[in-house]
Amino acid sequence: MSDRRFPRRLVLSVLLSTALFCALAPLHAEDGSQAWLRYAPPVLNGIPASYEPMPAALVNLDSSVIAASAQNEMLRGIRSMLSRTLRLEAKIPDNDDAWVLGTSAELHAAFPEYRAPSLAAEGFSISTLAAHGHQYWLIAGADPRGILYGTFHVLAGIAQGQAFAQLAGIESPAAPIRWVNQWDNLNGTIERGYGGRSIFFDNGQVRSDLSRAADYARLLASVGINGCTINNVNADPRLLEPAMIREVARIADVFRPWGVRLSMAVAINSPQVIGGLDTYDPGDPKVAAWWRARVDDIYAAIPDFAGFVVKADSEGQPGPSQYGRTPVDAANMLAAALKPHGGIVLYRAFVYNHHLDWNDPRADRARAAYDIFHPLDGQFASSVIIQIKNGPIDFQVREPVSPLFAGLKKTNTAVELEITQEYMGQARHLVFLPTQWKTYLDFDLRAGNRSTPLKDIVDGTSFHRPLGGYIGVANVGLDTNWMFNPLSMANLYGFARLAWNPNTTPDTIAADWTRLTFSNDPKVVTTLSRMLLASWHIYEDYTGPLGLQTLTNITGPHYGPAPQSQENNGWGQWIRADHDGVGMDRTVATGTGFIGQYPPEVAAMYASLKTCPDNLLLFMHHVPYTYKLHTGKTVIQTIYDDHYLGANEAAGQVKQWQSLDGLIDEQRYEETLGLLEYGAGHAIVWRDAIDRWFKQISGIPDDHHRIDHDPNRITALQMQLDGYTPVDVTPWETASGGKAYVCQVAQSARAECTASAHLNRPAGWYSVAVQYFDYRRGDSTFRLLLNGQPIAAWTADNTLPGEAPNGDTSTRYTLRGVPLRPGDTITVEGHPDDGEPAPIDYIEIVPEPAGAAHAPNPR
Amino acid sequence: MSDRRFPRRLVLSVLLSTALFCALAPLHAEDGSQAWLRYAPPVLNGIPASYEPMPAALVNLDSSVIAASAQNEMLRGIRSMLSRTLRLEAKIPDNDDAWVLGTSAELHAAFPEYRAPSLAAEGFSISTLAAHGHQYWLIAGADPRGILYGTFHVLAGIAQGQAFAQLAGIESPAAPIRWVNQWDNLNGTIERGYGGRSIFFDNGQVRSDLSRAADYARLLASVGINGCTINNVNADPRLLEPAMIREVARIADVFRPWGVRLSMAVAINSPQVIGGLDTYDPGDPKVAAWWRARVDDIYAAIPDFAGFVVKADSEGQPGPSQYGRTPVDAANMLAAALKPHGGIVLYRAFVYNHHLDWNDPRADRARAAYDIFHPLDGQFASSVIIQIKNGPIDFQVREPVSPLFAGLKKTNTAVELEITQEYMGQARHLVFLPTQWKTYLDFDLRAGNRSTPLKDIVDGTSFHRPLGGYIGVANVGLDTNWMFNPLSMANLYGFARLAWNPNTTPDTIAADWTRLTFSNDPKVVTTLSRMLLASWHIYEDYTGPLGLQTLTNITGPHYGPAPQSQENNGWGQWIRADHDGVGMDRTVATGTGFIGQYPPEVAAMYASLKTCPDNLLLFMHHVPYTYKLHTGKTVIQTIYDDHYLGANEAAGQVKQWQSLDGLIDEQRYEETLGLLEYGAGHAIVWRDAIDRWFKQISGIPDDHHRIDHDPNRITALQMQLDGYTPVDVTPWETASGGKAYVCQVAQSARAECTASAHLNRPAGWYSVAVQYFDYRRGDSTFRLLLNGQPIAAWTADNTLPGEAPNGDTSTRYTLRGVPLRPGDTITVEGHPDDGEPAPIDYIEIVPEPAGAAHAPNPR
Repeated sequence: MSDRRFPRRLVLSVLLSTALFCALAPLHAEDGSQAWLRYAPPVLNGIPASYEPMPAALVNLDSSVIAASAQNEMLRGIRSMLSRTLRLEAKIPDNDDAWVLGTSAELHAAFPEYRAPSLAAEGFSISTLAAHGHQYWLIAGADPRGILYGTFHVLAGIAQGQAFAQLAGIESPAAPIRWVNQWDNLNGTIERGYGGRSIFFDNGQVRSDLSRAADYARLLASVGINGCTINNVNADPRLLEPAMIREVARIADVFRPWGVRLSMAVAINSPQVIGGLDTYDPGDPKVAAWWRARVDDIYAAIPDFAGFVVKADSEGQPGPSQYGRTPVDAANMLAAALKPHGGIVLYRAFVYNHHLDWNDPRADRARAAYDIFHPLDGQFASSVIIQIKNGPIDFQVREPVSPLFAGLKKTNTAVELEITQEYMGQARHLVFLPTQWKTYLDFDLRAGNRSTPLKDIVDGTSFHRPLGGYIGVANVGLDTNWMFNPLSMANLYGFARLAWNPNTTPDTIAADWTRLTFSNDPKVVTTLSRMLLASWHIYEDYTGPLGLQTLTNITGPHYGPAPQSQENNGWGQWIRADHDGVGMDRTVATGTGFIGQYPPEVAAMYASLKTCPDNLLLFMHHVPYTYKLHTGKTVIQTIYDDHYLGANEAAGQVKQWQSLDGLIDEQRYEETLGLLEYGAGHAIVWRDAIDRWFKQISGIPDDHHRIDHDPNRITALQMQLDGYTPVDVTPWETASGGKAYVCQVAQSARAECTASAHLNRPAGWYSVAVQYFDYRRGDSTFRLLLNGQPIAAWTADNTLPGEAPNGDTSTRYTLRGVPLRPGDTITVEGHPDDGEPAPIDYIEIVPEPAGAAHAPNPR
Repeated sequence: MSDRRFPRRLVLSVLLSTALFCALAPLHAEDGSQAWLRYAPPVLNGIPASYEPMPAALVNLDSSVIAASAQNEMLRGIRSMLSRTLRLEAKIPDNDDAWVLGTSAELHAAFPEYRAPSLAAEGFSISTLAAHGHQYWLIAGADPRGILYGTFHVLAGIAQGQAFAQLAGIESPAAPIRWVNQWDNLNGTIERGYGGRSIFFDNGQVRSDLSRAADYARLLASVGINGCTINNVNADPRLLEPAMIREVARIADVFRPWGVRLSMAVAINSPQVIGGLDTYDPGDPKVAAWWRARVDDIYAAIPDFAGFVVKADSEGQPGPSQYGRTPVDAANMLAAALKPHGGIVLYRAFVYNHHLDWNDPRADRARAAYDIFHPLDGQFASSVIIQIKNGPIDFQVREPVSPLFAGLKKTNTAVELEITQEYMGQARHLVFLPTQWKTYLDFDLRAGNRSTPLKDIVDGTSFHRPLGGYIGVANVGLDTNWMFNPLSMANLYGFARLAWNPNTTPDTIAADWTRLTFSNDPKVVTTLSRMLLASWHIYEDYTGPLGLQTLTNITGPHYGPAPQSQENNGWGQWIRADHDGVGMDRTVATGTGFIGQYPPEVAAMYASLKTCPDNLLLFMHHVPYTYKLHTGKTVIQTIYDDHYLGANEAAGQVKQWQSLDGLIDEQRYEETLGLLEYGAGHAIVWRDAIDRWFKQISGIPDDHHRIDHDPNRITALQMQLDGYTPVDVTPWETASGGKAYVCQVAQSARAECTASAHLNRPAGWYSVAVQYFDYRRGDSTFRLLLNGQPIAAWTADNTLPGEAPNGDTSTRYTLRGVPLRPGDTITVEGHPDDGEPAPIDYIEIVPEPAGAAHAPNPR
């Protein structure tokens, strides 16, 4: 449409090559690329009254590149939101009002009457000052980052319709370490990334176009993130090669204006793999010397390099244990190389044996981090931080807080949270994680029998540690909206808000993010906040409640239901379900002893069935299925009911979102609706699989006789098949009767297969759902026919993990508003494509209510 | 984003190759491609109560392909708007409610109790019937087209939230001819087309992909258009070659299901150019034989071919005059060839001498059509229709009705209206034409001293003619939204509504179109309707009021202001402006005698200065500039004032549209806003040029001293120039002082030029406009700097006609919210590109009001 040009379109060419010109960019289309930095006008066609007297001049007293970013961001934000251009002035005008940016010291030098508040590093103060008969609107930082964070704070306030007076005050970050990790591989893929390919790497090189990396740094800075580890913790040693370091320095260059320090994950065997040494023994002086030389090279290219992240002796990664050394030996060796330059070491505590013997009732992966690291407490160098996942297993839907946090009193610690939704629906399910994270951060470990909530441990308060903080595994990608799902960015935002201030409530995070990302419309804010806040509990209900962990396929893609995969292997995520009961006995008395790793008050709480919370019961205890929870309901019936409840609530999320139609821009409305509808369909897959599995293993029927007794469901087995043939499904519980029906074109020499059902439903309006399997490969096509009349057509072109019919690929298509009469025939017609045999499971025919479900809005 | 796929996405591949599957397509993005057939749900997340008891079955009693389209459209519309799928039934169920489509006769055969109303051809009746204890919702057509039109009528009613009971009734078209002409060339360009390239032709061939042609036919059918002439009236004889006819038949094939008959424009010299004859004399039997053979070929390929449109002896086109023959000879010869097959001839009356002597006070192009065709009345064959432009000149902003309509009492006539905005801003200005057309259609020519409004003449009522009707020159193109400007499609819609029923009010057309195209939101309907209804008058005010015609460059692109181009040439659009007065004296007594072509009552009305309406005064009379209108104001002051009023009103249209922000989808909102802002800027160019020209020629100052005395304007001449040099502008009145300032890089050996102004404005917020020239070629870039600070950057990448600084290319960029202080310097920096020398005219600096112009809406 090169012909459709208006003079308004602004130059994006050479004219905009200076950062200053970002301030001139217009609002973008609502494609999610701007995330919470849309800078939409808070009021239409005007300026909020409180900003009418806003100063027109802008003075930036600080000469740093970071403060220059703040200055440009002010120009950009004010212009976009208030349609006004600020005047850049070189010095404070004495005959005019002005916005003034600077450090506290710079402001005090400029205004003797300015009383600088006490600010922690990277903190800021927002205030006004009257002098020489003029008003000055001040953004004071403890340092350049503080100026930048204060600027973003003001701009976010304007975007949310807050007056400048409401924004006045002081803020300082809770902890110095507020980093994201990206698990990007040099080939451009991202481990556990769901938002497209790497913004840093492609084909073994750093990308030539780093514009998305720069945009990412700006997004991170806008919420106070000050570090980013750019590569997979399963690290590629090639990253340390000299040519690569020069390339990586280009990434650091685009991070630097935003105060985001670059860090790298390193493989501990690098000296051997790329260094040509015959060992990587951290006790060997030539190994230490190799690391020192590499680190010196890095700092020559990246003077503000932040440090290393280390995953060692974990899941097949090399580690110091190879040489009988401990994590202390490895971490301190690296720290010694980095410390002269100001770099630090984040050493991950995610170290465990994944060849545990499941027959051993004492074996327990949950114990590993504490068992390994607790004895080393006090031995780590002062610039080493132990990076500990929030829970003792691996980012499950519900875990207790890792006891290691209370077990390292003389060691710096940081909590590692997973923003990317690895076990949480992989950006295809709605799960707002700040709700979950807040339960961890607020959890009081009672170390020394006093209040030591996790948030106070990692920020250094509890044990007086100088370093610590928050690490979020973000894994954004090249997708226009960064994370595939328009709602997933709430998790990156929420992580940063909690890292800045862990006392921020999830309600505040949800509402602020909604306002910044979508709209200040009260209905949007209320509805979407409610959806976000409920989502984790809903996901827990339809996946693994009662502390069972997510119950996904832990040996595969970590996506769909596969409870048996937890059991009988060396990975140690056992739930110990048998004919009589379920749960891991982690008591000291009769179990693995894991509970004994906690300080006494918490250990006592978990040890007692009376005080152990229901939502972690099966993580801590093995109980009979008939054991009654605090609710009075049995474990088994709770498992059944929670899954029905969760799937119903997921369907409710669709309806809530639909109530926002017309209040959200079309593109993001439609993208989100598609994902919520998919998620609601997959919640049914989860529900059925988990309930079937527990019914089989427990032998106890559902009180409500729902499982495999859906009166609206007609399985392929019950249909008249033409071409479709059964295949076994693994795991069996993810399809009706453990079978999928596939159209094997090669066998039948035909282009399509059909499955038909003769119905005898009372005349009325129905929804017709078709449950089919959508592999990553192939775009099978389907048609739905009513008495031969085609009434729907769709393509199985989702990119779900795997190439088989199972809980990962089971997908629901629903057509609403189908009029049925007694004697009708419904036919599903599948056309295979590229090895995907148009597999089907069942159809489900549900009467629709006579009236609209809720009062429709006029359109 | 191939990864961003949801299972909802419906198949558009082989599965949808049958027309039936259109019914399964989802709502498209709001890109204008669906025009008024968006089928958006009238209520959000529900079904209107009145459609809750809607029949679920659909029976189509008619076997025609047109009725099949109606059936499929019902499925598609009901599904899209009401989320319900209708059941196709082969026969009327006696145990179920049903929608029933059929001709009146077919319905009567099915329901003996059905009393068929009397319907004109292509009419329809909407009703309900109770039989065998069931309800039948009936769409009865006089014929298959009537079924289709009735179906679209019902679907449009549902889209607008009307209950079925409200839609019951009978409708019949006013006239049998309801055609569009497309001026498409075989090379793919479109003469006077502004919506992209041809949907029919490319590179001398019929396009292989005719999907847009099919979509167009559906759009046309939805508003009752039954014919389409696919090629330029300046016709290419090659269209009649046998291979080409086979290709054209493919277009007819995609038209046919929608009841749109294909017609072709033909060149009268085709027998000589492609037939190998030595003559094209219509009196020569071998010429007639050649045409008969060609027509027989056409009907062999296109059995429902509609006929020929002929432009002959006009603007350089060959014609019968070459052989001393008359239009009767040519038209009747063609009619003789077509009539055996049912084809007709549309012979255009747009025949005039474009080498008139402007020194001759009796010469008058307006007389030509009547002078040529009136004497031939009664001689044309019964299947010939004279296609007469609404006015005697050429689609100007205001003309009287052509007197020829009253001068052909024994001849079929059709009115030719121009939907494509040739003289009306070329889809870059907002001009809603139904308001104008209605003044023509309602104009009573008083033939025989009785009521003979134009609409009654062309529908055959006034003179009892069997054939007649409406021709609209549409010229849609491949642009996604068909006509470039999202609001221009209102003209195609409005033309069709008036062709169906010329008593439809513009208010109804504007409101219905807005509801179908944008939203049923009352604020949108009220605001946009008001904008549409005012737009023609606004455009007339800032272009050519008082019957002056559009005052555009008639020898060039017919776009920007160029009043002198009307004068002193052979084209005869003279306005006879001199030092003393202005206007064409067309009286019988002292002028050209044109007024005498009207029936006596109308002639008397125009002849008298007392009764001649002000808005046509200068079309009919030459008067002194100081002549006082019925308003009491002089002609010259009225010209001045109307232009200021029009430009102000155009600016007001921008604000009205902005009040709809958030109520219109983003894409169409932004596209339309960009065009309205451009148009408001160009209205200022018009205002200044026309007022300057009249001030110079009249020597009479503006009472308000506005012309070239804008206190906010600083011309380039008044600025400090670095690199910019003056060039003369033609016409002089389209730039300040007749000069543009260009950056001739080759001369100055530099990359950019600057123009700076030192300001001494009181401190405050201002808008800064830059008036520059944007040629079709080249994408010059501009920056605006405030004391050296870049505050705006834009590209001159509009595709306006021409390669010179003038009224076609003069363009305004406005930056709002600029804070100025005494002593500031504003600089325009231009970077030439590809021969476009970043030309500038002036800057204009306007104080902004202290408060918002109107109360902002919460966002």
